[in-house]
Amino acid sequence: MKKVNLQDKLNLFSEYWSPKIVGDLNDSHVKLVKFQGEFVWHKHDNEDELFFIIKGNLLIKFRDRDIYLKEGEFIIIPKGVEHLPIAEEEVHAMLIEPKTTLNTGDARSDLTKINLDRI
Amino acid sequence: MKKVNLQDKLNLFSEYWSPKIVGDLNDSHVKLVKFQGEFVWHKHDNEDELFFIIKGNLLIKFRDRDIYLKEGEFIIIPKGVEHLPIAEEEVHAMLIEPKTTLNTGDARSDLTKINLDRI
Repeated sequence: MKKVNLQDKLNLFSEYWSPKIVGDLNDSHVKLVKFQGEFVWHKHDNEDELFFIIKGNLLIKFRDRDIYLKEGEFIIIPKGVEHLPIAEEEVHAMLIEPKTTLNTGDARSDLTKINLDRI
Repeated sequence: MKKVNLQDKLNLFSEYWSPKIVGDLNDSHVKLVKFQGEFVWHKHDNEDELFFIIKGNLLIKFRDRDIYLKEGEFIIIPKGVEHLPIAEEEVHAMLIEPKTTLNTGDARSDLTKINLDRI
């Protein structure tokens, strides 16, 4: 059992859209990720997903609205809801979601990450 | 589906050791809580518990060590591990834990909170 300093962990990687596992919480993983640019529309059929913003401003587009998140804010995206994250500038975020969650959900592509690193 | 600004929610209450529910994430609740003083030794037999520090310094005593947490740090306390949170000065924290989790775990007392408020 060790504490995790978010900034220390964020200093260990620079790649975008590649979540790193930093904790195991019941059936979920705690992950850190850096975003820049536009991701892909996708949904997670069986998993709610929490995005907590550590740095920067993240736009999440939904089919019926846009939501802007800034440092110190989180959103829980319910299972089944399509979303598209867009980071005009670099964003650092913590994600909490079931261990079964694929980053691209139902939209498998070159962006899909399997076997995430633990840092 | 709404975003949550941690500081806006923290401004809504002042009592200590009384977690407020601010989100539903799969089988878990996201909670905000303010601590000051010493809590009680307890454990959660079936639930891992995440403490993320938003403000202040939290000491968590375990039977074999002390861990100090500061702003921007989290710890996941595995199920079954006895712990005692102590806040010498006011601490604001986010907790993520299964919906079944009682704040005082196996140590029911006047500090036990049932039917937590949603804010």
